[in-house]
Amino acid sequence: MPKLALHLFETLYAHGVRHAFGIPGDFALSLYDALEESPLEIVVMTHEPSAGFAADAYSRVRGLGVAVVTYGVGALNMVNSVAQAYAEKSPLVVVSGAPGIRERRERDLLHHKVKTFETQWRVYQEVTAYATILDNPLTADAEIHRAIETALTFKRPVYIEVPRDMVDANIDELPYERPPVKKVSRGALLEALSETIQALNKAQCPVLLVDVEVHRFNLQETVVELAEKLQIPVCSTMLGKSAFPEHHPLYIGIYNGEAGDPTVRELVEGSDCLLMLGAFLTDINLGMFTAHLNAEKTILATSEKIAIGYHEYPNVDFREFVEELTRSQELKPHHTEPIPTMRPRVEPSPGPITMKGLLYELNAFINDDTLLVNDVGDALFACDDIQTHEGTSFLCPAYYASMGFAIPGVIGASLADPFRRAIALVGDGGFLMTGMELVTAKKLGLNPIIIVLNNSCYASLRAMGHENASFVNLPTLNFSEIARALGGKGVVVETGLQLRKALHQARDSDVFTVLDVRLSPSDISPALKRLGELFARTLKG
Amino acid sequence: MPKLALHLFETLYAHGVRHAFGIPGDFALSLYDALEESPLEIVVMTHEPSAGFAADAYSRVRGLGVAVVTYGVGALNMVNSVAQAYAEKSPLVVVSGAPGIRERRERDLLHHKVKTFETQWRVYQEVTAYATILDNPLTADAEIHRAIETALTFKRPVYIEVPRDMVDANIDELPYERPPVKKVSRGALLEALSETIQALNKAQCPVLLVDVEVHRFNLQETVVELAEKLQIPVCSTMLGKSAFPEHHPLYIGIYNGEAGDPTVRELVEGSDCLLMLGAFLTDINLGMFTAHLNAEKTILATSEKIAIGYHEYPNVDFREFVEELTRSQELKPHHTEPIPTMRPRVEPSPGPITMKGLLYELNAFINDDTLLVNDVGDALFACDDIQTHEGTSFLCPAYYASMGFAIPGVIGASLADPFRRAIALVGDGGFLMTGMELVTAKKLGLNPIIIVLNNSCYASLRAMGHENASFVNLPTLNFSEIARALGGKGVVVETGLQLRKALHQARDSDVFTVLDVRLSPSDISPALKRLGELFARTLKG
Repeated sequence: MPKLALHLFETLYAHGVRHAFGIPGDFALSLYDALEESPLEIVVMTHEPSAGFAADAYSRVRGLGVAVVTYGVGALNMVNSVAQAYAEKSPLVVVSGAPGIRERRERDLLHHKVKTFETQWRVYQEVTAYATILDNPLTADAEIHRAIETALTFKRPVYIEVPRDMVDANIDELPYERPPVKKVSRGALLEALSETIQALNKAQCPVLLVDVEVHRFNLQETVVELAEKLQIPVCSTMLGKSAFPEHHPLYIGIYNGEAGDPTVRELVEGSDCLLMLGAFLTDINLGMFTAHLNAEKTILATSEKIAIGYHEYPNVDFREFVEELTRSQELKPHHTEPIPTMRPRVEPSPGPITMKGLLYELNAFINDDTLLVNDVGDALFACDDIQTHEGTSFLCPAYYASMGFAIPGVIGASLADPFRRAIALVGDGGFLMTGMELVTAKKLGLNPIIIVLNNSCYASLRAMGHENASFVNLPTLNFSEIARALGGKGVVVETGLQLRKALHQARDSDVFTVLDVRLSPSDISPALKRLGELFARTLKG
Repeated sequence: MPKLALHLFETLYAHGVRHAFGIPGDFALSLYDALEESPLEIVVMTHEPSAGFAADAYSRVRGLGVAVVTYGVGALNMVNSVAQAYAEKSPLVVVSGAPGIRERRERDLLHHKVKTFETQWRVYQEVTAYATILDNPLTADAEIHRAIETALTFKRPVYIEVPRDMVDANIDELPYERPPVKKVSRGALLEALSETIQALNKAQCPVLLVDVEVHRFNLQETVVELAEKLQIPVCSTMLGKSAFPEHHPLYIGIYNGEAGDPTVRELVEGSDCLLMLGAFLTDINLGMFTAHLNAEKTILATSEKIAIGYHEYPNVDFREFVEELTRSQELKPHHTEPIPTMRPRVEPSPGPITMKGLLYELNAFINDDTLLVNDVGDALFACDDIQTHEGTSFLCPAYYASMGFAIPGVIGASLADPFRRAIALVGDGGFLMTGMELVTAKKLGLNPIIIVLNNSCYASLRAMGHENASFVNLPTLNFSEIARALGGKGVVVETGLQLRKALHQARDSDVFTVLDVRLSPSDISPALKRLGELFARTLKG
């Protein structure tokens, strides 16, 4: 009979997980002992919010990831990171150490406890798709499988709490399979497909919108095949960026309502059949609700359901739907007018560095092997003008939008996919939150390139009509010096040429390099300028 | 009619709050506009976990504090800090921006949202004593008063969510007073007092244990008067340390079960009447449950209840109980044998610096004006051997024990009580979590002395039977260099003499100074040595 924690970690390994991110603590000591015995590699981070971000990024790249933390001080310090994984559909497994079952019965005031022993489990129910306490050796195996199946089916985080006296418990394996967490019906699939095919064939100007779940379900190649079969224009959203290759001749750019490219907007909003694959419609993706989509003419397929016009098919599997649609012999190709492919609207800046110049250099620098991890704020919005390549990995918390994701994220993503050249784009505000994590990059021998938009302010808040508010200002810091103190390289960048040189030098460095790009607080990306105006309008109501 | 948010901040000001800690965000922008208009000073921190710790420390010193954060990414990133405030009885008010009421009705996928618009409120119900959403101008004033009254009565954090379209709403003031959050009865008070006085007078060897709520209710002087009237030995716990002056002749030291001083243990456990004021009995305070207290002979008074032997008085006010007990004419003085006053068991170390040498120098350096803020791990346990002075402020999260408290804590505490010389004692692990916050100290013109126990490991985990586990190791860092990169001074300390000099130089610095004390991973405080052995035994058992 296997031991509980070891069995849990071996099951994760069997699902492709190779690393466990976290920080040990007294209630997680025996769990870490089990980790050390397991085939997973332990990655000790410096702070739980970062451990959560790293494990989330790892899950987004690799399909599944795990964070192992201690009770209370550990798990409750990771709630925000897990909430982001939930909101953005990342299948992250949270494993928390906890007081033993016997201790709970006998002792009332154990340290790290808040209200009751169940407080943490209740908090995690709010931010995960499944939350379980492994308090019974007879059901532990079934619970582990249920949790992992839920994470993989809905691409959401799950929570597994391991009381410390259960870590080494001998557990039984389940003699039968439980019903699946999602019910699917062949009849529903066929009906949804038939309706979709009919609508596409009948349409005069259909458009395909490819979004984040295409990436999560690893359906990128299938969707390229579908687009080429249909011969219709393809767009994406900020969150789904790079799920469809941005150099593909059918690709027209990012749809973002009034805040985005007008050509894309016109095609999407004027379409008589908009097929949205794996999308979730958010205010940031949809340009602060300046999107004008016609539900009648929309087909929205996600892991939860297929919605066609005003009716829904809850019992259809997303992957099956996309795959069978692509294989269908009935789909007719369209012959839409050729549309100019997406081109970044940025230009080189010969003198002092500007956001546009930075985007120009970055576009010139990235290639098929790039792994780009973006923080939020202008580090996110600017990406509207970055053209990723086929195969580029692009990660950004574009919906939930938690600052501080990029640096721990680039660590997690680099471990998940070590053959790419990793770049993180982060504001000074985001760097201050989790930049200390660079000591972990150093420890692991990773060499990401960190581009810091150093403009001494929270630029996106400033752009929302708060140019004169003192609370959007940040102290002016020397991030290149901080980088050196943390064991890496640091370069101050004041011109476009310096950036170009620094990027090429950083490419060959074997430790991390921080490019400390000095920007004016008022110099923001074209996309943030548009968004800021829309935000300010929303604020005014 | 006042405007909602301004009224909230003015009410906090009227209760003595002068600073608001936090980070602005789009859902909190109008809240920050109101803050700027209010008499509160805005303190923008770098990361929400730190903002929570700073506001918590401020509340512990000043009696009430406030953190103002944005929705989702802000508030959910502060759950752990607020959980600690709950667990350790700190009256912290959390104010969170949020989507407007109209937006919630009209829009489904607003950014920063997790499951539903109420997810965050539900999470905060688990870690606060009161959680309210100010969604109605007719009840907003009553809710604000209810929340603050709850915080002040039970010394627990409370949560106030302000939808952004309510920030400037005109609100009505409540025409009547609601019943108090705690019901008290004069009869219960008199009966509890009479029983207590009788028990104390009858006892042969009574002992007074003074704990954290004496500090929270600002009853320190009253309790000194009570002790002098009774003429009995007084002890405290780690969490309550410095609530009773440690140089007082009646003071015998910290009670910590088998892990603590044997003389104190003998007196406490052998007492025939143990009066515990404002205590909560935790496993760390009680030496991993090696305490042997006799419930029959114990009187435990807290803000929740007075427990005498096996019966309880829920309806007694803690402050009234302590004050009336002290004023009582019926109390008889005892004439216990003189007991040697508490003396730290540490000695100077002439050569390379050791933990014992560090404690010796720190004992020599601190005085009546010191404000000492400790992180957890050995930074906490070592304090068993630090003798605070009358008037010393001593802060430490000794029960919930979240790492990373000291540096943001020393910022919050310094603003709450600017006339003290602030010192933070922190491990390298704790520094890595929140040390970046030193840029905020610099920005504010604060000059705390930061003593880093730099031993390249999580020393307390290591001491729990994990000397050879690789996951308890930390990278070896140069914290003095990091300090300089963050804008302060940094000094490497390798001998006791260097520490003495560095402390005196740091005292006169006008920016923060980091003393980077290089210790061997195996060099731990006497208290941690004892505790580590007990922890390891608990783990096995």
